[in-house]
Amino acid sequence: MTAAATVTAAVLVIGDEILSGRTKDRNIGYIADYLTRVGVDVCEARVVPDVEDEIVAALNALRARYDYVVTTGGIGPTHDDITADAVAKAFGVPIGEDPRVIAIMLERYRPDELTLARRRMARIPAGAELIENPISRVPGFHIGNVFVLAGVPAVMQAMLDFAVKRMKTGAPMLVETVEAGAVPEGLYGDALAAIAAAHSEVSIGSYPSFKDGRFANQIVVRGKMEAAVVAAKSAVVAMLADLRSKV
Amino acid sequence: MTAAATVTAAVLVIGDEILSGRTKDRNIGYIADYLTRVGVDVCEARVVPDVEDEIVAALNALRARYDYVVTTGGIGPTHDDITADAVAKAFGVPIGEDPRVIAIMLERYRPDELTLARRRMARIPAGAELIENPISRVPGFHIGNVFVLAGVPAVMQAMLDFAVKRMKTGAPMLVETVEAGAVPEGLYGDALAAIAAAHSEVSIGSYPSFKDGRFANQIVVRGKMEAAVVAAKSAVVAMLADLRSKV
Repeated sequence: MTAAATVTAAVLVIGDEILSGRTKDRNIGYIADYLTRVGVDVCEARVVPDVEDEIVAALNALRARYDYVVTTGGIGPTHDDITADAVAKAFGVPIGEDPRVIAIMLERYRPDELTLARRRMARIPAGAELIENPISRVPGFHIGNVFVLAGVPAVMQAMLDFAVKRMKTGAPMLVETVEAGAVPEGLYGDALAAIAAAHSEVSIGSYPSFKDGRFANQIVVRGKMEAAVVAAKSAVVAMLADLRSKV
Repeated sequence: MTAAATVTAAVLVIGDEILSGRTKDRNIGYIADYLTRVGVDVCEARVVPDVEDEIVAALNALRARYDYVVTTGGIGPTHDDITADAVAKAFGVPIGEDPRVIAIMLERYRPDELTLARRRMARIPAGAELIENPISRVPGFHIGNVFVLAGVPAVMQAMLDFAVKRMKTGAPMLVETVEAGAVPEGLYGDALAAIAAAHSEVSIGSYPSFKDGRFANQIVVRGKMEAAVVAAKSAVVAMLADLRSKV
């Protein structure tokens, strides 16, 4: 049994509105969930403001390091939408109005409705492939290992379906969750550390949540090899049963 | 009128569970909202896994660049909680069991309940100050310009109240929102760009949302000088009224 090939990704969320707290990001979680399920491991996420140098720096750091980068936000028609220009700058390629996008827009708008603002959305870096947008038509794009999606969650989600089809995917992460419930982390932490040390092919996490004044804990076993995940989960279940029998 | 002093911060979310999508982060939005209101500008956020080198690298990048870094996650009792050790490594200081934390824990636990796992939560980098935790008692800590908080939102939020008391704060950001409703961004984008260019003391963003098959737009004016924010908002309101009168 060999470890499955690993495919990695980062998420780059672009937008002042996330950093001011005005808009609560829902894209990182959605993309993380989605990519994890198809076998692409999200290794990092960043949120940067609508500032070209910041976007360029983050893009170049992330695209050099991971197989893929998925960006969200900043591809609309208003002056604060500067993602396409930043991506072109990061890749050092020219950017201009893409006739493919103009053609798509003309299916929706009359020529006199193509305001300068709307034409901004046709600015696509040279060499990029378009990413379909079944919601509001105007596409995202894909250049090198970077996928540029909308910020509005419904639109981003629709685009992501198309983006993922162009990614190579690895073995999906297998995830098993064991409910520890009210057993305190501090009571099982030592035994869990021993299990984690003995099962190095998987990663084991312990996650408390707090609701109505009480903590409840879950232990999560993650790995790409089924036998290893099953074995570690069994060890966790047995450890909790043993602890509960002693209480 | 002089521009108010700017205080900056970054948020560093630590945890595999966010990057796998298992847990949806709610801390970035909460902290961004809170700090923005007290006049601390959140300029960047990152999510990194429970990997020491990754935490150290992100911490050192962010603490060098911003006035403050607020971290969430990784300070519990289990083996995957490695934030305190990573912070000590980033600062190049020793870490050991802090008698102040042991004393706090002994108010809650009998000595024989102080498992090795629980004692892990007493590991605090040398020179750090504790941050109160009114929910589950075991504190966070503060070293240099880094504030280390829990990952569970209720606990993080309680700790943040205490953390912010130790920060210098700038002039709060003033935010005015204008409902553009169903007026398309593509229709007002050109005029809005002109307003943004003429009102450079504020930042103006346009934010679409999509619900029940329809887009609705909001225009947000942000700035630290009241007169400038009011003037830009008036220009936006007048521009929209003009557009609506022409439809």
